[in-house]
Amino acid sequence: MVELVRPVVDGGRFPAKGAVGADVVVHADVYVDGHDKPDASLWARRAASRKWTEIPMRPLGNDRWEGRFVPDCLGPWQFRVSGWLDRWETWRHGTKAKADAGQDVSVEIQAGTELLDSVSAADSAETDMLEAARTAHERGALDDILANPSLDALMRRRLDRQPENISRICTVTVEPEHARFSSWYEFFPRSSVDGTNQPNTLVDAIDRLDYVADLGFDVVYLPPIHPIGRTYRKGPNNTLEAGENDPGSPWAIGAEEGGHTAVAPELGTVADVTKLASACAERGMHLALDLAFQCAPDHPWVKEHPEWFVHRADGTIQYAENPPKKYQDIYPLDFTGSDWQGLWNALKDVVEFWVDAGVTVFRVDNPHTKPFPFWEWLISQIRARHPEVIFLAEAFSRPRIMEMLGKVGFSQSYTYFTWRQERWEIEEYFTELATRTLDFLRPNAWPNTPDILTEQLQHGGRPVFVTRAILAATLSPSWGVYGPAFELVERTAVREGSEEYLDSEKYQRRSWDLDQPHTLAPLLMRLNEIRRMHSALQHLDGLHFHRCDNQQLICYTKVDPGCNDRVLVIVNLDPWNAQSGWVDIDLKALDLPYDSEYELHDEIGGGTYGWRGNMGWVELDPNGLAAHVFSVTPIVPTHHEGRDDPEANLSEAIAHAEVVGQ
Amino acid sequence: MVELVRPVVDGGRFPAKGAVGADVVVHADVYVDGHDKPDASLWARRAASRKWTEIPMRPLGNDRWEGRFVPDCLGPWQFRVSGWLDRWETWRHGTKAKADAGQDVSVEIQAGTELLDSVSAADSAETDMLEAARTAHERGALDDILANPSLDALMRRRLDRQPENISRICTVTVEPEHARFSSWYEFFPRSSVDGTNQPNTLVDAIDRLDYVADLGFDVVYLPPIHPIGRTYRKGPNNTLEAGENDPGSPWAIGAEEGGHTAVAPELGTVADVTKLASACAERGMHLALDLAFQCAPDHPWVKEHPEWFVHRADGTIQYAENPPKKYQDIYPLDFTGSDWQGLWNALKDVVEFWVDAGVTVFRVDNPHTKPFPFWEWLISQIRARHPEVIFLAEAFSRPRIMEMLGKVGFSQSYTYFTWRQERWEIEEYFTELATRTLDFLRPNAWPNTPDILTEQLQHGGRPVFVTRAILAATLSPSWGVYGPAFELVERTAVREGSEEYLDSEKYQRRSWDLDQPHTLAPLLMRLNEIRRMHSALQHLDGLHFHRCDNQQLICYTKVDPGCNDRVLVIVNLDPWNAQSGWVDIDLKALDLPYDSEYELHDEIGGGTYGWRGNMGWVELDPNGLAAHVFSVTPIVPTHHEGRDDPEANLSEAIAHAEVVGQ
Repeated sequence: MVELVRPVVDGGRFPAKGAVGADVVVHADVYVDGHDKPDASLWARRAASRKWTEIPMRPLGNDRWEGRFVPDCLGPWQFRVSGWLDRWETWRHGTKAKADAGQDVSVEIQAGTELLDSVSAADSAETDMLEAARTAHERGALDDILANPSLDALMRRRLDRQPENISRICTVTVEPEHARFSSWYEFFPRSSVDGTNQPNTLVDAIDRLDYVADLGFDVVYLPPIHPIGRTYRKGPNNTLEAGENDPGSPWAIGAEEGGHTAVAPELGTVADVTKLASACAERGMHLALDLAFQCAPDHPWVKEHPEWFVHRADGTIQYAENPPKKYQDIYPLDFTGSDWQGLWNALKDVVEFWVDAGVTVFRVDNPHTKPFPFWEWLISQIRARHPEVIFLAEAFSRPRIMEMLGKVGFSQSYTYFTWRQERWEIEEYFTELATRTLDFLRPNAWPNTPDILTEQLQHGGRPVFVTRAILAATLSPSWGVYGPAFELVERTAVREGSEEYLDSEKYQRRSWDLDQPHTLAPLLMRLNEIRRMHSALQHLDGLHFHRCDNQQLICYTKVDPGCNDRVLVIVNLDPWNAQSGWVDIDLKALDLPYDSEYELHDEIGGGTYGWRGNMGWVELDPNGLAAHVFSVTPIVPTHHEGRDDPEANLSEAIAHAEVVGQ
Repeated sequence: MVELVRPVVDGGRFPAKGAVGADVVVHADVYVDGHDKPDASLWARRAASRKWTEIPMRPLGNDRWEGRFVPDCLGPWQFRVSGWLDRWETWRHGTKAKADAGQDVSVEIQAGTELLDSVSAADSAETDMLEAARTAHERGALDDILANPSLDALMRRRLDRQPENISRICTVTVEPEHARFSSWYEFFPRSSVDGTNQPNTLVDAIDRLDYVADLGFDVVYLPPIHPIGRTYRKGPNNTLEAGENDPGSPWAIGAEEGGHTAVAPELGTVADVTKLASACAERGMHLALDLAFQCAPDHPWVKEHPEWFVHRADGTIQYAENPPKKYQDIYPLDFTGSDWQGLWNALKDVVEFWVDAGVTVFRVDNPHTKPFPFWEWLISQIRARHPEVIFLAEAFSRPRIMEMLGKVGFSQSYTYFTWRQERWEIEEYFTELATRTLDFLRPNAWPNTPDILTEQLQHGGRPVFVTRAILAATLSPSWGVYGPAFELVERTAVREGSEEYLDSEKYQRRSWDLDQPHTLAPLLMRLNEIRRMHSALQHLDGLHFHRCDNQQLICYTKVDPGCNDRVLVIVNLDPWNAQSGWVDIDLKALDLPYDSEYELHDEIGGGTYGWRGNMGWVELDPNGLAAHVFSVTPIVPTHHEGRDDPEANLSEAIAHAEVVGQ
């Protein structure tokens, strides 16, 4: 029986997510009836390859087995699990038990010889080994037969496995590493950062890249860069009447100068986008553009393709609305209208256009207001030719809808992190992300966005900016900030009760002074350094929350899949008061023995502490050090470090060797 | 989108379990992209019927929907879930929002008229209603249009639902009520209960039925009644040498007198079995026989069908063993040997034989040592002709194996209850039974069996017998005891460290005196009465554990699917000392509002208490009252009792009406 294989999404309807160079950890229940011994293998391959690679699996207890493989190239990969009755081990185990009890095993030895006779040697070494085993059987040299790992390995390779039980083929979409682990920095290229309030361009943006790279971010995301509509253009602070010089919202896409494949003249040209993308690449970063599939009334498509829009009963084009709210500057597209094929292809051409211009990362605006089949089609079409392209879903919608967007192909998803502020909320939400939705939804945690300045940020002051950055950067493998608003602790809302910024960059150019003394740039830089240093922070599945008797302190650890890196984070969620308490570390989650000694090095505050056992005392002050981000080093090496538990490491070693040697 | 439909077992590979007259509660995620409104229906039918019945589903929040149907006959049933964009409700909701905000809705009314025009009336009443709605539209009589439930219902029936999303067809095996809710009493018919130590027969067993029926049990289970082998027959207390008059173990099946279709001469005849089954039926009980598919060396099959057994390398027949233990009185059958078809058919004939003799309940011995495909085939073959037959799996094996036996068709399963004794163990295990394995494994909880006298029973004395009976009878819809050993508090083990009874009935006849004053018969009688009285105790899914500050007190509630019956159980797990503490009832689990008042009536100890809110103080003494089994009656009726929340009850009312009217 081979059952409950994972990662499998909705019974195989959708592929699971993987990334180049990262372990795909496969689990399955494998068992046979009665007291016989099962064995199991994981088989993996690129979908395009005909050759499967076999990787032995290891039992975790209660019939659960584990195997792993490491995809080394982009695109779809496949795996399956096979399980069978291990007749050699069943025989070996039973015979040993009888021999140990002093019973006569002559009939058993006869049965063992029959097993040896049933296999064919593949080379002379195997012939010799089988011959030696037969001789040992004849001599009754039990120790030579029953405790001979080389013979066991040979029998594993050569003994007939019928009846073998093989799972269905499961698929993993393998994306670039930054689909899994990335740090995003969003800025409006038309604003200036030298305090001059001069309109900036894409060429000016190149000058800002060193700053972003210094902070350690690896994705530079720009809001839409297309010509902005004039009809119903919004003025500063979302007023309905724009003045002559008001630049408008970048999300009102399309004007006389062009639509989704044009660049606003005030920002530059398509060639400038390509230059910017190259400049990012030179700094180890990726340029991300915004895909907002909607049109301003002035968009060329409105005249050229009126059939791509919904028409109201009176014949006018339907503007966007969320009754009773009206957004007359935006026309939604009709994804199920009479010429839906024409529209879908045009939108695919938009993505292809920017991919050809050098862009491989897209942040998709409001994907939840378009049909899921469109996204599944679009992403698979793009990915078939450009497996390096990744998509981030900007949907703040209901849970099932956000999950479905992950399933149909989005590489990453914005999350509710922004509004998960209490300890229990954070614990519950990230536990779910690290378990139930792990195989298909990759969270990207943002403390702020141009649309979201939470009340907590508005009222909690700088300490909240600090702790929210630490939480996002250590809880989630991908995170991002909207800057420079974030690092400059911009926190005035347009009005009480609103999450919109006052003088939001969405509607006007801003002028920022990056050199202010209170900037959080050093913290962001350090956080991104720590994230690169610690593989534990680059994964989601090794997350574990621990108890603390003070509700204002949240405590969690992360370990990487091999358990070779461990990070312990403790954050004071109270922005006003120092808080102290006992944390109670579940050492099993760190693969550390009870009562073990370990060293904690604070990667932010500095300082090294020796702890022993599970209980530890902490005190954190929002006006000084609001959080510990500890690297954890066992003082007595555990078996994982020591590599002196052959059983635990053997199958892993084999697994890696075989994949590498493929 | 219609997703995550339940109950579905392993993606539909296996049917879920249902019972005649019990709600099948169906859940699904149903949603559409954007702000549009979805609607959903459950469709159900007997698999043999061509006609589906539509049952409206109701939203539970976060895109989860619920519907239910009540199967009224045995055999396979099918259901599926359909979801669609509700264009009428989407229109109604948006138009109402605009109208409420004072906006012009003339274009909306035009769109509404188009929707009205798109439907065809099925009768003159519908024609009139549509005409009235059109007139109201012309007059702009908004209230008549936007708040008209009859019109909404008509539009739900008649408006085109394209594109409709329909789940795959899911299957439920509908079994008799006692597959779901049953109370078992096991006894050895050869022992006597009048203190005379005379060998008893099946005819004598008829005389014992009134006693069992008085205790309130509804399944009478007898260990194997077949001729017992002589070769390697076991003597009293499992000794290897039996004396001339030792009767042997009933599980060593087969002798000169016959095998699995024969009755041991000392017990009676096949005709006596039929009489016994009828006598059970007259008392509202079912007779259960034991299916132990193994043979004594004297079984006729050993000579007639040597190919049905495994042969060792030296040509002898393989006896049962669990190295280094040997069971030479038992030959296992070879389910995968050369004539496996012949063997499988012979075993099916055995079951058919006893079904023809009037037996419809089988307790299956050690099913986990036979192949799963055999059980799936056997049970489906029997069930196709005799859907009233049920099977209880006696497997105390690893979790995945016990689960698979439930999946391949066993109606009920023995459980680990016997060894789950600490509060956290009971909570963890029954939470899993009530959630993860709910759809395919029905637990049957036994405090003791002829094989299992736990150390807790041996050493804890009568109070442990009391609390284990209360736990089994109130936690699990099905429970059972091995009597009279249980009610007579028999608790001497054959030796320290063993779970076997001293002078076990497995190997010798016993003589019981049922009239002893310390008998627990009154408690068993009362527990079975309470179970019949409270539908909450007849279901597993309404189980919820509550906090208590004293670890020795376990506290849980059960509610039935309609939440019309509620039971609160608090048990003192300490058999030696009185224990007291605060219990903290999660009133949401009882569908009671915070701070509600309710009356607790103790169904065992008597007495009625008024409680308010979530906290309550209890004190329980093992030497007096060791447990409370409270019926819970809200003093202020909640909306479920009051039926004054139309939205919550409407769809349920419709669902039941439609199924009944099918």
